[in-house]
Amino acid sequence: MQKIITAVLAAALIGGAAYHFKVLRSNFVIADQGSFMAGGTVLHHTGKYTSPYSPDGQTFHGDHAYVFWQKPFKARKYPLVFIHGIGQFSKTFETTPDGRDGFQNIFLKKRFAVYLVDQARRGRAGRSTEKATVEPVFDEQLWFDRFRIGTYPNYFDGVQFKQGKETLGQFFRQMTPNIGRQDFNVYADAYAAVLEKTGDAILVTHSQGGAVGWLTARKTDKIKAIVSYEPGGSFPFVKDENPTAMKAESGQGETVEIT
Amino acid sequence: MQKIITAVLAAALIGGAAYHFKVLRSNFVIADQGSFMAGGTVLHHTGKYTSPYSPDGQTFHGDHAYVFWQKPFKARKYPLVFIHGIGQFSKTFETTPDGRDGFQNIFLKKRFAVYLVDQARRGRAGRSTEKATVEPVFDEQLWFDRFRIGTYPNYFDGVQFKQGKETLGQFFRQMTPNIGRQDFNVYADAYAAVLEKTGDAILVTHSQGGAVGWLTARKTDKIKAIVSYEPGGSFPFVKDENPTAMKAESGQGETVEIT
Repeated sequence: MQKIITAVLAAALIGGAAYHFKVLRSNFVIADQGSFMAGGTVLHHTGKYTSPYSPDGQTFHGDHAYVFWQKPFKARKYPLVFIHGIGQFSKTFETTPDGRDGFQNIFLKKRFAVYLVDQARRGRAGRSTEKATVEPVFDEQLWFDRFRIGTYPNYFDGVQFKQGKETLGQFFRQMTPNIGRQDFNVYADAYAAVLEKTGDAILVTHSQGGAVGWLTARKTDKIKAIVSYEPGGSFPFVKDENPTAMKAESGQGETVEIT
Repeated sequence: MQKIITAVLAAALIGGAAYHFKVLRSNFVIADQGSFMAGGTVLHHTGKYTSPYSPDGQTFHGDHAYVFWQKPFKARKYPLVFIHGIGQFSKTFETTPDGRDGFQNIFLKKRFAVYLVDQARRGRAGRSTEKATVEPVFDEQLWFDRFRIGTYPNYFDGVQFKQGKETLGQFFRQMTPNIGRQDFNVYADAYAAVLEKTGDAILVTHSQGGAVGWLTARKTDKIKAIVSYEPGGSFPFVKDENPTAMKAESGQGETVEIT
């Protein structure tokens, strides 16, 4: 009878556990998620505040980064902080233009906390302390080439990018303009402020974000590692170890000597 | 002995189920999540495409909405589509400036699928078909008053908004500029395209988004209900049922006669 009890109990526990793990495995189980802005500066208009309808004494907060974060159930030790590249925003790491999971979902399922950031003066962090004129620029076919989908209008053989108008439209629409002058120091200052909120973390950078990531590493001690995909922009090297600049199609292969 | 088996089995099942429900209750269990752009238009530059470095024959996609969506485990029938108001973006419905859960998290926990949208020419949907000049505007103290936190610099008695510099900074930074002219039809067209992707849904609108939501309802048959918080902008009424315009502090209390 002892055996029967044990067997029935085991069957019940295995059945319950199987359902439990099926739920955990087939869903994103997120302990918490939220958003915040980090870093940036505050401009103060001259004069004394007297009325909401006069600029006198009013403020303008800008040049911060925006962060949406998700921490999974039983998260790993270090979160991933994603740094996008030129022309895009955090969408780089979300759903792909053809609807597959991006790094956000892939790494959440691998139990990494993920911090998706829009750099200062881009996307949700569009509140810039500098005046900017933004207009439609007819250069989408350049980005088709530059992101190595193919040589427009031809796709590379075997490219992992679903061919068709719908996917290409999603890809073009995931670009968004700079609001204000490009300034790596402004971006890196804001990312360093993000790291003050995350604590020790791993940076995952893409393209021009490579240069921004390395610059950020000089402004905070919270970066435990940097994973850089297709890094563009300037490459920092210690003085006297600075190699000859590489030639890049984008013209951005130079190195920067640091001391 | 039958009773003993039943008791042991029940205890095991209750224990396992208790843990299972604790995990489900204390986490966001999300069946799927992702992002996409919806609606918008495509501009074509004159000429024939010959080179990525010439605008001839190149395209510009803009005026779409951007959507981040999350569908919880065992979601309710109708998703919620959130429409922000003037000056802000989807952040309106995320973490509050003082760090509490916003509608995104609150309604996810109540098993609603949530679609957080940035309207065309705002935030992550900043790719506008119209030229825009954006500059820092010193009007933050106006927004303190307009969002009914108080009469700057005084907070209203009992206001549910943590007082202090950090919270106020987060509030000011959750504003972001229009990229291109304000155009409710452009916004509503893009929201209607969002509804084509969500299927039947409930709109939750805030402030100026109220007017945008009602306009959207005239462009799609997918809206099952509209919940409007502090609606601003124009109020649509059927011809001959159009009441006298209300006076609003923002000057936006007029009605629009529809046929």
